[in-house]
Amino acid sequence: MSENIVKPSILPGFMELTPSDQILFNKIMDTIRKNYEKFGFLPIDTPLIEKSEVLLAKGGGETEKQIYKVVKGDTNMCLRFDLTVPLARYVAQHYSELSFPYRRYHIGKVYRGERNQKGRFREFYQADIDIIGNGSLDIINDAEIPSVIYSTFKDLGFDSFTIKINNRKILSGFFNSLGIDDSTLILRAVDKLEKIGVDNVKKELEDLEISKDNIEKIIEFISINGSNDEIINKLKDLRIENELFIEGLHELSKTVEYIRLFGVPEENFAVDLTIARGLDYYTGTVYETFLNDYPEIGSVCSGGRYDDLATYYTKQKLPGVGISIGLTRLFYQLTEGKIIKSTDNSLTQVLVIPMDGFMDKAIEGASILRKEGIYSQIYFEDGKMGKKFNYADKLNIPYVMIIGKEEAENNKYSFRNMKTGEQKTISIEEVLKCFK
Amino acid sequence: MSENIVKPSILPGFMELTPSDQILFNKIMDTIRKNYEKFGFLPIDTPLIEKSEVLLAKGGGETEKQIYKVVKGDTNMCLRFDLTVPLARYVAQHYSELSFPYRRYHIGKVYRGERNQKGRFREFYQADIDIIGNGSLDIINDAEIPSVIYSTFKDLGFDSFTIKINNRKILSGFFNSLGIDDSTLILRAVDKLEKIGVDNVKKELEDLEISKDNIEKIIEFISINGSNDEIINKLKDLRIENELFIEGLHELSKTVEYIRLFGVPEENFAVDLTIARGLDYYTGTVYETFLNDYPEIGSVCSGGRYDDLATYYTKQKLPGVGISIGLTRLFYQLTEGKIIKSTDNSLTQVLVIPMDGFMDKAIEGASILRKEGIYSQIYFEDGKMGKKFNYADKLNIPYVMIIGKEEAENNKYSFRNMKTGEQKTISIEEVLKCFK
Repeated sequence: MSENIVKPSILPGFMELTPSDQILFNKIMDTIRKNYEKFGFLPIDTPLIEKSEVLLAKGGGETEKQIYKVVKGDTNMCLRFDLTVPLARYVAQHYSELSFPYRRYHIGKVYRGERNQKGRFREFYQADIDIIGNGSLDIINDAEIPSVIYSTFKDLGFDSFTIKINNRKILSGFFNSLGIDDSTLILRAVDKLEKIGVDNVKKELEDLEISKDNIEKIIEFISINGSNDEIINKLKDLRIENELFIEGLHELSKTVEYIRLFGVPEENFAVDLTIARGLDYYTGTVYETFLNDYPEIGSVCSGGRYDDLATYYTKQKLPGVGISIGLTRLFYQLTEGKIIKSTDNSLTQVLVIPMDGFMDKAIEGASILRKEGIYSQIYFEDGKMGKKFNYADKLNIPYVMIIGKEEAENNKYSFRNMKTGEQKTISIEEVLKCFK
Repeated sequence: MSENIVKPSILPGFMELTPSDQILFNKIMDTIRKNYEKFGFLPIDTPLIEKSEVLLAKGGGETEKQIYKVVKGDTNMCLRFDLTVPLARYVAQHYSELSFPYRRYHIGKVYRGERNQKGRFREFYQADIDIIGNGSLDIINDAEIPSVIYSTFKDLGFDSFTIKINNRKILSGFFNSLGIDDSTLILRAVDKLEKIGVDNVKKELEDLEISKDNIEKIIEFISINGSNDEIINKLKDLRIENELFIEGLHELSKTVEYIRLFGVPEENFAVDLTIARGLDYYTGTVYETFLNDYPEIGSVCSGGRYDDLATYYTKQKLPGVGISIGLTRLFYQLTEGKIIKSTDNSLTQVLVIPMDGFMDKAIEGASILRKEGIYSQIYFEDGKMGKKFNYADKLNIPYVMIIGKEEAENNKYSFRNMKTGEQKTISIEEVLKCFK
């Protein structure tokens, strides 16, 4: 025994779960992964540490301030802060080995030195998909992405959610038509509408020295609402003679048309002209996804189309479209808000309890169960029956199988449903039947 | 387009796979995970970064030299170098929330600044299981571990492998009986037998100032061989009157007896007195696993019993037993040695190719396939048929489903086996039947 005991604790902003919560977390992660794979996305797993010159090639901005540096020897290294930069590096580096369109999913941890705050994590999982074209990428890809979102959130057990869609070309084209050339900052202001309200957006636009007249026009424009078709028709009726606008509107119409073909119900997606996304990265379609019953959570899955993935690493033009689920934050919100049940989770289906001297029969029974795919654990330790039942209860194991003298003589097991308390003495074949 | 292009590359000693290899890697990881879960091990996922005072509580030795430090703000942090120290910290920290015996598996990346060398990785996956008792832990747990190893490597497709077993109490007790009190360094020397040969072990023992007579006795002792029962009987026949030796022999006998009950065939496990394990951590049973056809790989799964997991973090006595698979190194060896096939891997089963104007039917077909659990991708881009077939070939997608005018008129699809070239025009129901 050591003299000096170090207090066991983890760093603030890092998530660590109980076994029961971890089972639930893994279930969600598995569901996302399965959906991504079902649509033909290929797995990738890149190093968590990369060369700083590579990871920070773009440079500047908030990102660099949040970076975790890694020190060992002389190399400048840091931890990845998203999965997009490693993707760009990967595609540029392995360009000749990949087949395009290259569809990849990546579920992994990323690191950001965020301000310490409840619900903000410094280590968190992202679950991303991206489709990367070589030179070009059909707009249908933009329509398939919402069908992946739809399939994933349905499988996660949600029914009432809305995938909001817009196209930044429509916004930029409209701003251009008003004589405003650089739309980046305006897009960023518009994107905050939901968060800060109309009046504050107006103020931000004023600060950007947009004329009163134009501000009114912008607010009127992004307030266009109605059904998906109504919005598109209203936009068409504006007859704005701007090339970018026309292109964006054409893309949005086609995207909406195909989203329907992909089987996403009308109530699960909505054209919304206020969706702009803050990042300057996106150039066309943009997505955000909201759980209708829990708007306070904010967007649970967002992304969009970009013109060129890997400008910092290659001269190849690589347009793409993708989305990201912030898994750690989502899990935190869902469990904190009791939207999903974070207890009663067990992978193990049966706890086998041998009475003194019947370990051999216990091992035999557990082995048969496992062979049939039933996850089973044997309780090996000494102790009273109550303690062993208690163990099963605490681990939420739904069934207990007891073997003692009487059972062994009749080649049977006492099989107990821990929830109902129902117990019957049956053969291992009959136990198996209970799981079929 | 940026002016300055950064060469896309990763750090030396980090593994990054092609999509096809990644699919294979994930399959192996999933198989290990499934086996661990089948035996009732609970998942855990701890932060990759921990406080240095916690992670390095033990201090000293090789470990500290290999540590990756993490810098952000003032906190002293580093990347974990194994999964055992985080487990010790986790169990001490969450002691009151856990149910004992606590069985956990952990598959995750760890970091060691090893010397740069082929086949040595600085970021690598470990896949660990441990069973932690509260105060005590029955010896049967030591016998169950080999059955998990057996089940896992069988599922990974191996038949000919040997789980070598020993008990350090037998070695230490024997050394004690020769009048040698501190056996740590001798154990470390003996453990190198396989690597450096008998003569070099003798030399190392000479350097430790062991008498010639005792060196002969030690070599004779560890050379005891035969079947599992023969070795145990020979050990019994020695009638060594050392308490530790007697305890170790009793444990080993019981472990062997139960390993049989757990259904591990006699040819897959072997008592081997030369297995000592270098780490001073282990106190009883020790394991190493070898693929008989590829001895050059060395041990693919090792571990053992320890008296106390978390001495640095708690006064609770937490004995345990566990094993670790060095997944990244194992994968490297298996693919480099062409022991497993690292090409031809695909998750996607069908590539749906629409002819011009038949995207709707393609989407319809792919949606039906996915609903039935068949992973499918639609090829959205323009291009010649050959290019599209080529795409399926490069991604090893086994089937292609083509939809054009003729097919659509008959409500059928041209379904092609990409390996045999066989193609038939059939309904979607008939396509589904091909997968059943």
